[in-house]
Amino acid sequence: MLALYYGANQQAVLQELPQPEPQPGEVLIRVTLAGICGTDLQVLRGYHGFQGVMGHEFVGVVAGPQNSSRLGQRVVGEINVSCGACDLCRRSLPRHCRQRQVIGLKGRDGAFAHYLTLPAANLVTVPAQVEDEAAVFTEPLAAALAVPEILPLPLKSPVLVVGDGRLGLLIAMSLARSEVEVHLLGHHEAHLALAHPYGVTTFLEKEMPAGDYEVIVEASGAAPGLDLALARVRPRGLVVLKSTYTGRYPLDSAAVVVPEVRLVGSRCGPFGPALRMLARKWIDPRPLIDRRFPLSQGLAALEWAQRPGVLKVLLDCREEG
Amino acid sequence: MLALYYGANQQAVLQELPQPEPQPGEVLIRVTLAGICGTDLQVLRGYHGFQGVMGHEFVGVVAGPQNSSRLGQRVVGEINVSCGACDLCRRSLPRHCRQRQVIGLKGRDGAFAHYLTLPAANLVTVPAQVEDEAAVFTEPLAAALAVPEILPLPLKSPVLVVGDGRLGLLIAMSLARSEVEVHLLGHHEAHLALAHPYGVTTFLEKEMPAGDYEVIVEASGAAPGLDLALARVRPRGLVVLKSTYTGRYPLDSAAVVVPEVRLVGSRCGPFGPALRMLARKWIDPRPLIDRRFPLSQGLAALEWAQRPGVLKVLLDCREEG
Repeated sequence: MLALYYGANQQAVLQELPQPEPQPGEVLIRVTLAGICGTDLQVLRGYHGFQGVMGHEFVGVVAGPQNSSRLGQRVVGEINVSCGACDLCRRSLPRHCRQRQVIGLKGRDGAFAHYLTLPAANLVTVPAQVEDEAAVFTEPLAAALAVPEILPLPLKSPVLVVGDGRLGLLIAMSLARSEVEVHLLGHHEAHLALAHPYGVTTFLEKEMPAGDYEVIVEASGAAPGLDLALARVRPRGLVVLKSTYTGRYPLDSAAVVVPEVRLVGSRCGPFGPALRMLARKWIDPRPLIDRRFPLSQGLAALEWAQRPGVLKVLLDCREEG
Repeated sequence: MLALYYGANQQAVLQELPQPEPQPGEVLIRVTLAGICGTDLQVLRGYHGFQGVMGHEFVGVVAGPQNSSRLGQRVVGEINVSCGACDLCRRSLPRHCRQRQVIGLKGRDGAFAHYLTLPAANLVTVPAQVEDEAAVFTEPLAAALAVPEILPLPLKSPVLVVGDGRLGLLIAMSLARSEVEVHLLGHHEAHLALAHPYGVTTFLEKEMPAGDYEVIVEASGAAPGLDLALARVRPRGLVVLKSTYTGRYPLDSAAVVVPEVRLVGSRCGPFGPALRMLARKWIDPRPLIDRRFPLSQGLAALEWAQRPGVLKVLLDCREEG
């Protein structure tokens, strides 16, 4: 099969690999569509030393083993593969499993390929009314839905979301659907406009009103976003940190200690609620699609995804010809 | 009166100043003892551009105005002077008042002097059974007591306190008195020994057991303390940040985002509970006193307080001779 492989020579290459064999308890998935995420671009810069088939956002069809009860089902998959036995798994934190693998990111091949394998327990069936082009957003939408889990709801004042990239938009849209008043700060008028149908109030930085926010979600993926969040959060307020930065962020500890700010990291979220939101059309992520490439043009797709202001780039992973 | 003044030339000097006049609603306090805090040492390095009489930890006696109902009372004083009118004051967050002054730290003269003035509302009377040498620890003990306010009590596992300086010891002692199992990590065997009577388990860094902690309190005042806290906190765990660092801390955002850690700043705390702890002798902070200097030797005292491993240095501010 064809796969986009990040290798020991610190380069992504398109490569013919043997089709993976599902182990006991696992299924084989034929990938339909896969999405390129900011973390994939960090893999290209050496993120945590990952080597293997890239990619973790996908929708596909169960293609094996032949005796699987899910054969032929359209599925998405939880990206963390957990042991089920460690103290964190037993405390209902499987996404933090001490032995965890993460497809395309940590110790396990990912979805930028014709096929991948996953434990059957990781699969979630995609409802018929969710098109592949929407279902491929399940993982990032789930990550966005981790934000309201942290917030002290109901909120009496608007939440500020910093960053009008893929994740920032999905967070703004899903918060707005959770009856939260949302302000979204970004750099691209065309991106900000995608949030308007959801009732989100948007600003370019030069238009920011004065005042502070009780809750700020930093999803810009760049250090100035966290600078702004710490400068604009109210004393005793909450900054949700959704994005990791390349390199280290120079934190002014006084900006956390003196106003007694809470800075809370947030990574993955729940697939079930994300698929329900998509099925009910509460969120239509498809306007975020910038461009689609066949897997055979995966390297060009990675390059395209790194252009400033590009939203979601999809890989069509069905075998061609 | 004599005062230890940090001036425009970025130097601390001993200076004769006019005795301050209490404004309406204020009282004049004759300072008995004052304590040197890590933040005072940061003032010497230009902390937030403060200029004025240094010092915020004190115990004293009300000396005016002559018609004050508190005349002659032994008092300590809340260090934040708030407006009572802004949105944060109205939301019961006066220590975060938008117009606040802080004695010896922000816009208001402090306690390293024969006299200071404070709003009468800031005073708390010292119970007779609390000696001056203990009462002078009210402010740092109150800061320590802000920690249990944040914790998800009751805890099923030990809290790790990082730092065996003044604040780390007071935090470890007061947590232990709150029925929390406490591990204290430090560099000085003699400091760690001060926590043993409180049932605190102590470690030098080379003796640290393996494993992680659900809650870590960083009170070392140095960046390696936060490195250690982020390395040893359990996924979804809590790091309470009590100390500010000179310069900026290079934060690895992935160390917060991936394990979904909560990093919570904490500054000041409640005076009432601190004085009650001292009155009941639940905590005796006096073994933390390293040395006492008369105010007239204030510059030598500041120098002494900067030596590594020195615990609390007190200034005797009563007029000599």
